[in-house]
Amino acid sequence: MENTLTILHNATIVTMDSGDRVFINGGIVIQHHTIIALGQSSSILHQYSSLAHQIIDLNAHILLPGLINTHVHTSQQLARGIADDVDLMTWLHNRIWPYESNMTEEDSYISTLLCCIELIHSGVTCFAEAGGQHVSGMARAVELMGLRACLAQSSMDAGDGLPPSWATQTTDECIQAQKELYAKHHNTADGRIRVWFGIRQIMNSTDRLLLETRDAAKELKTGIHMHVAEIAFENQVVVEKRKANHGTVSYLEKIGLLQNNLLAAHTVWVNNEEIEFLSKGGVKVSHCPASAMRMLGFAPVKEMLDAGICVSLGTDGAPSNNRMSIVDEMYLASLINKGREVFAKGTTDPTALPAETILKMATINGAKSVLWDDEIGSLEVGKKADMVVVNPSLWSMVPIHDCISSLVYCMRSENVESVMCNGQWIMKDKKILNMNEGEIISMAKHASSELLKRAGIEIPNRMNML
Amino acid sequence: MENTLTILHNATIVTMDSGDRVFINGGIVIQHHTIIALGQSSSILHQYSSLAHQIIDLNAHILLPGLINTHVHTSQQLARGIADDVDLMTWLHNRIWPYESNMTEEDSYISTLLCCIELIHSGVTCFAEAGGQHVSGMARAVELMGLRACLAQSSMDAGDGLPPSWATQTTDECIQAQKELYAKHHNTADGRIRVWFGIRQIMNSTDRLLLETRDAAKELKTGIHMHVAEIAFENQVVVEKRKANHGTVSYLEKIGLLQNNLLAAHTVWVNNEEIEFLSKGGVKVSHCPASAMRMLGFAPVKEMLDAGICVSLGTDGAPSNNRMSIVDEMYLASLINKGREVFAKGTTDPTALPAETILKMATINGAKSVLWDDEIGSLEVGKKADMVVVNPSLWSMVPIHDCISSLVYCMRSENVESVMCNGQWIMKDKKILNMNEGEIISMAKHASSELLKRAGIEIPNRMNML
Repeated sequence: MENTLTILHNATIVTMDSGDRVFINGGIVIQHHTIIALGQSSSILHQYSSLAHQIIDLNAHILLPGLINTHVHTSQQLARGIADDVDLMTWLHNRIWPYESNMTEEDSYISTLLCCIELIHSGVTCFAEAGGQHVSGMARAVELMGLRACLAQSSMDAGDGLPPSWATQTTDECIQAQKELYAKHHNTADGRIRVWFGIRQIMNSTDRLLLETRDAAKELKTGIHMHVAEIAFENQVVVEKRKANHGTVSYLEKIGLLQNNLLAAHTVWVNNEEIEFLSKGGVKVSHCPASAMRMLGFAPVKEMLDAGICVSLGTDGAPSNNRMSIVDEMYLASLINKGREVFAKGTTDPTALPAETILKMATINGAKSVLWDDEIGSLEVGKKADMVVVNPSLWSMVPIHDCISSLVYCMRSENVESVMCNGQWIMKDKKILNMNEGEIISMAKHASSELLKRAGIEIPNRMNML
Repeated sequence: MENTLTILHNATIVTMDSGDRVFINGGIVIQHHTIIALGQSSSILHQYSSLAHQIIDLNAHILLPGLINTHVHTSQQLARGIADDVDLMTWLHNRIWPYESNMTEEDSYISTLLCCIELIHSGVTCFAEAGGQHVSGMARAVELMGLRACLAQSSMDAGDGLPPSWATQTTDECIQAQKELYAKHHNTADGRIRVWFGIRQIMNSTDRLLLETRDAAKELKTGIHMHVAEIAFENQVVVEKRKANHGTVSYLEKIGLLQNNLLAAHTVWVNNEEIEFLSKGGVKVSHCPASAMRMLGFAPVKEMLDAGICVSLGTDGAPSNNRMSIVDEMYLASLINKGREVFAKGTTDPTALPAETILKMATINGAKSVLWDDEIGSLEVGKKADMVVVNPSLWSMVPIHDCISSLVYCMRSENVESVMCNGQWIMKDKKILNMNEGEIISMAKHASSELLKRAGIEIPNRMNML
């Protein structure tokens, strides 16, 4: 197994390496988890054919690094559609909190399985969990499905109106629980699972939680995933209660949290000074276009990229988006950020965030955001074999005149044919390999309907149901 | 054939009728082109089983009226990806005009075939062509593919910098050519094809062309499809050269073009007075979210809907969007118009343009926009059987807690399983029935590459192609 060599050849290989190399007819050699050679098909075949145990002709398909989703709530997958077209307070108090606080570990396991199916069909090989309640349930699902992930528990030790079961957690309990999860799950599943610290958001955190999270993550050499500057109200509260200059980011700068292991999700309401703080600290930003449009506002993505910040892409959770597809987020990120220029400058800028920038956000910037770019995010010798095979000859992508822009603007999940993670196929010719997709769908339908009943969530009818 | 009765039953039927009726377990009876009965499955089966030639169990799938795409350039399908991330002048002068002016009728035929494949896979049964050069080529493709369409020629009798072959058309020739196309193609293909008048845009039209188009369309009782108020510069030119108060819409009002047979595409740069003019005239608006974000700006969709204007959805052409899917435009229309509120009011409004409104835009409002709501746009007795079968049990839609919002926000083209137009299946279980999809894709690859060579269009590389 460990010595098995596989050659994939006759593919357009978009490496996303620092030289922006694309092999028009490329080949790649994989041994166990790792890419050991990459180049023109002819020379790869010449050099490795006699050693290979398997030689796969990719028929001029496109080979991409696995896409990386840097902000996803796997435990919210069963809540898809429970909070559409409602205001933020209804969303939080009447739908999401009752849902999440009534989940069992088994629900979280099923929810993560279902979410992983959608992620894999959308070409994702690695994701950063934004933080739920049952990390062990998530870890079990990720291990089985074959994906790579940075998991986190959602930690809260303060805040008004929390569900009773959440309101009693002390700072020490939050930190201790996360250290235990780290001990139990970090670097498990053949090294595919890492455990991070999670902070839900500043309004649910004491200063002690913020600071001890910073120190614990530093001690364990892992990352912190936190929702940052999501809504204007959050900044107001931070200015009033914590005497920050502008909002969450300026406060986090003051207390020393803006370090290069912080993954800040959304980061919509930031001013120029705060963009400088993020840049100087080496903070990574997860831009979630769909969720921003639905609920939060326009993040200054162009300004953050121009300031040298590593911005990547996230889907957020199902009830904030509904589609959990980085393929769609690439399309959206381009459209929304071109359109946003109309307000900044009076006219749209069709040249803003070009396709090559977006593709970097979804691959190598994603890898940097999850602190894993030494092993993933590009196709290079020595990196893990996390890859997506894209069929460019379907109706949704034909004709192709510009391969890179077609991957960003035309590709749909229909085109994602096969996915490999850590050297193993986890989807082949559209079939999920490690688990039975139909069974997971049945389990998910049942579990979600029971959970909504338990949580007392009722969704009003929009039409005249007969 | 004309007397054959088909029953479809065991479906969630979203009728989109004026009573917003949804049959949770519904049945429908089709005779030839037409819906002759609709109701609960049990009573439909009881009443019609003995008369039916075919009884199809839809296995709890969802049945929707066929989606209607009210602004699409079928002749631009071969140009997908030739003009991504470039400014408007490069887009027009160096890419689109050379491409379109070098097209043959055969190219237009192939381009329309390819576009129809994408439209059908995305659940569209009827579209409004924005105007190309070769209506006979389009008509041939539409007739063969089995879709319903309002076709139009792109007419221009003025304007700077036009390609030589276009610059010499007189007003009389424009009108005459369109009258001939009307005589040749209107009401052909079993009534599925109608011919409209097309005006490219005001900067390429003399007043005579505008007025004679208005009169000719009135005389022939057909519609006019026109790009209106696309960019701020257009309004400036109209104010300076034509002494309008604000822009194109106020000028069209002055000369009496704002009538209920005008389909105005985009309509981005309009003020409140102009919204009133559009409303009073009964003008229909095609909102194209993706194309607006890429190039044009935020149309005041909420304001137009609030003013009682019939707003529908369009994809625009492939080089303005890349994805030609009303399924994706529904998702986008919701996101973009919720996000736009942040600029109007300082905060996003997640309740703006709710799912039921978006679904109306894509169905019954589409039908009104193409002046065909007496026959299509909803599932009702006496209307044509234009329908989409949606599979809600795939990973992309599970779980469903709110059927209507899931159709708008979760559905992807993956979920579109079968499509019927005019009583005939044109796609069944994902297979296009009337033409060979693979052959069309091959023809399209060849034709588009030859056309780009002929037009001298070269697309620069974004990466290091080896």
